[in-house]
Amino acid sequence: MIPTGDDLKIISVDVKDIRFPTSLGAHGSDAMHTDPDYSCVYVTLETLRGVNGNGLTFTLGRGTDVVRLSVMSMKHLLEGRNAGEIFRNFSQTWRSLTSESQLRWIGPEKGVTHLAVAAIVNALWDLWAKLEGVPLWRLLTNMDPELLVSTIDFRYISDVLTPREAIEMLKNAQEGKQERIEELLERGYPAYTTQVGWMGYSDGKIRELCTKYMDMGFRAFKLKVGRDISSDVKRCELVRKEIGYENTLMIDANQIWDVNEAIEWVKKLAHFKPLFIEEPTSPDDVLGHAAIARALRPLGIGVATGEMCCNRVLFKQFLQAGAMQYCQIDSARIGGVNEILSVYLMAKKFNVPVIPHAGGVGLCEMVQHLQMWEYTSLCKSQKMIEFVDQQHDQFVHPARVIDAKYTAPTDPGYSTELTAEAIENYEYPSGKEWQRMFQEGIFQEIKY
Amino acid sequence: MIPTGDDLKIISVDVKDIRFPTSLGAHGSDAMHTDPDYSCVYVTLETLRGVNGNGLTFTLGRGTDVVRLSVMSMKHLLEGRNAGEIFRNFSQTWRSLTSESQLRWIGPEKGVTHLAVAAIVNALWDLWAKLEGVPLWRLLTNMDPELLVSTIDFRYISDVLTPREAIEMLKNAQEGKQERIEELLERGYPAYTTQVGWMGYSDGKIRELCTKYMDMGFRAFKLKVGRDISSDVKRCELVRKEIGYENTLMIDANQIWDVNEAIEWVKKLAHFKPLFIEEPTSPDDVLGHAAIARALRPLGIGVATGEMCCNRVLFKQFLQAGAMQYCQIDSARIGGVNEILSVYLMAKKFNVPVIPHAGGVGLCEMVQHLQMWEYTSLCKSQKMIEFVDQQHDQFVHPARVIDAKYTAPTDPGYSTELTAEAIENYEYPSGKEWQRMFQEGIFQEIKY
Repeated sequence: MIPTGDDLKIISVDVKDIRFPTSLGAHGSDAMHTDPDYSCVYVTLETLRGVNGNGLTFTLGRGTDVVRLSVMSMKHLLEGRNAGEIFRNFSQTWRSLTSESQLRWIGPEKGVTHLAVAAIVNALWDLWAKLEGVPLWRLLTNMDPELLVSTIDFRYISDVLTPREAIEMLKNAQEGKQERIEELLERGYPAYTTQVGWMGYSDGKIRELCTKYMDMGFRAFKLKVGRDISSDVKRCELVRKEIGYENTLMIDANQIWDVNEAIEWVKKLAHFKPLFIEEPTSPDDVLGHAAIARALRPLGIGVATGEMCCNRVLFKQFLQAGAMQYCQIDSARIGGVNEILSVYLMAKKFNVPVIPHAGGVGLCEMVQHLQMWEYTSLCKSQKMIEFVDQQHDQFVHPARVIDAKYTAPTDPGYSTELTAEAIENYEYPSGKEWQRMFQEGIFQEIKY
Repeated sequence: MIPTGDDLKIISVDVKDIRFPTSLGAHGSDAMHTDPDYSCVYVTLETLRGVNGNGLTFTLGRGTDVVRLSVMSMKHLLEGRNAGEIFRNFSQTWRSLTSESQLRWIGPEKGVTHLAVAAIVNALWDLWAKLEGVPLWRLLTNMDPELLVSTIDFRYISDVLTPREAIEMLKNAQEGKQERIEELLERGYPAYTTQVGWMGYSDGKIRELCTKYMDMGFRAFKLKVGRDISSDVKRCELVRKEIGYENTLMIDANQIWDVNEAIEWVKKLAHFKPLFIEEPTSPDDVLGHAAIARALRPLGIGVATGEMCCNRVLFKQFLQAGAMQYCQIDSARIGGVNEILSVYLMAKKFNVPVIPHAGGVGLCEMVQHLQMWEYTSLCKSQKMIEFVDQQHDQFVHPARVIDAKYTAPTDPGYSTELTAEAIENYEYPSGKEWQRMFQEGIFQEIKY
């Protein structure tokens, strides 16, 4: 379960700035992020054995270089170390990354530095799974509860979850695990799509996409809201007309409102019966979300958040305060798999379903592993995983959604390896495609 | 009040990485930050008129380059703009810096990107005060309440504070303002010191420093705790023996504990009668601090935090939840003066005293202005300002503490201008002193 050998020495940590020009098509646009160029910081850990780990964190274009430099500033914590020894005391290495005595001041455990930790830690998990020759979800599912829990740093969450409780919860979920694994391999895991309702899309395009995704078997749809109320009403009407009331509608404001504004606004959309309102206000406002949740509960609308929740301490409080009815973990914002596992365990304790944030670059690829582990090994029930059909071709092992279900990955690793072509074309600013676009005046190169 | 003229165009934004080798003397060491090299990212805004604005954010050494690059990534939002027009719609410029559509993903409003905003925004305020020919505290004190409030972005705090309420609070504090200004100029503002109890100091050094600072007139002292309980008891005993029980003792754990651990630990130090325990746990844990505050209230010990509180949304919740009895704003962690003003106003609304965090690089220089504005223009009562006697000589207009009182600054600006010598010696890695230390093997240059 824990690989050993002197040849597991990490001999280099390579970090790349990869950007895709998605702003050209308004893909991914919402009330706050009007022109994203879906990007990532891409980490490759090279071992003597020749097996490499790849990890990434998702970004929106500008600022990817800042996160890249943050990864560089942590390289010295990994280079020369033995990967097997890291896995044996993973929570210690995790803490050495998040609590480095000088670097923690510019975090701690949030924003740029935590995105950097996510990319590094995700690469370590990809490496571990590859060394074992299994997909990450199988690695996690095969682990003894004690080993899995040993990877988690319980600092600042022990008032809500102890290692002993976590082990207990995992042991209680062992029964029927093999059947669930087989079922997953056979039938996959349900997806919902955000593809129908980006803010920048026209009515015609929304209608067309609803039909397309309904035909593909999707039964749950998410729509961006928050620009202006009359447009939101029109867009909700449009989507409900296409998908009917027997299917699921979710709405997403991407943090555009203040607390009271959120309550008033969502009340005006309540008759469209959304399952939840996602990110109604600041991702840092636990008490604000709790107030919104209380106000919307009588209307049967839940509050969902998490994609920009900065660490386990915030997740802990959202759960304690009843401020999230749907927990939307992100695979690359908090400190990688180790910290995400702690959030899954806390959510389970509070009986809050986890419905991961995905899309972007590599997020679908990653969260499928996490959610499949949760189903087989912790919760025994299936929920949904967000699906956006973008940037998958850039990966060696892309997420595959068939009949609105994620198929269970079978290739070794965390599905985080980019193709050589993706890197060659989209490394910023030197990639072939970027050079072409600069020359053709489609983009101007960012220089300081 | 708002300067005008075409020559207020910002023609360049210069950003420097400045580091001081303070780890050599264990100055600034605490339970979490064992070897800080006090540093800063230093921004110079050059205007056509020849009047420049200087701003900085404090860092601990490694990672200063990451914050510097973050400032670089925002330069395009300022270069070529007219400073007078920025001041006229300051809250809009502030939001353009904190909510840039691609950059906000790697924050938002926290960690590296918010430290970068702080350095930029502090430089803008320094520029404004210099253009008016007054120290910053006088600029703020002279402002109409309407103008002052117009600089604040109320996004995400309007459920607790509206612009109208803020204006009202300021108007209610006008009476006696002139007298308070004169009193300040004559007598200064009380300081307390953290200088006696850094974690790395020996017993002898602590004793010697207590005597020294008592002789200098100090009556309030802060001690680092949290490494081990028996050492803490010994250190508290030592300091109480030197300063007696008629003077004030405060203790500071720098986030070392989990919630329940904090409560148990501080109970064991309660008989030393500390005024407050500072940073008992994660700076993000509002509900955790509230639980600690509830448990310690019967013992007469308050909870203080704020130096790593990442933005106004967190401050809002700490105040709402009764989780801080002392609000320790920092001048360079949240987004500069504009956002800090909103925290002062919210603290006033909740009747929580503000006792700023200082020390580091330039923090004493900055917070004296803020606290003097608060005294004259908002609260009419004096509290304390932290004082640490380090790095002041590096500034053109250093903070001056005489008889344990900060003297009111009279030079134009925000006291944030470094001397040419400081830059020449300590710019990293090219500064003369760094080059000397690399050559002598005292430090190894950080290279990626």
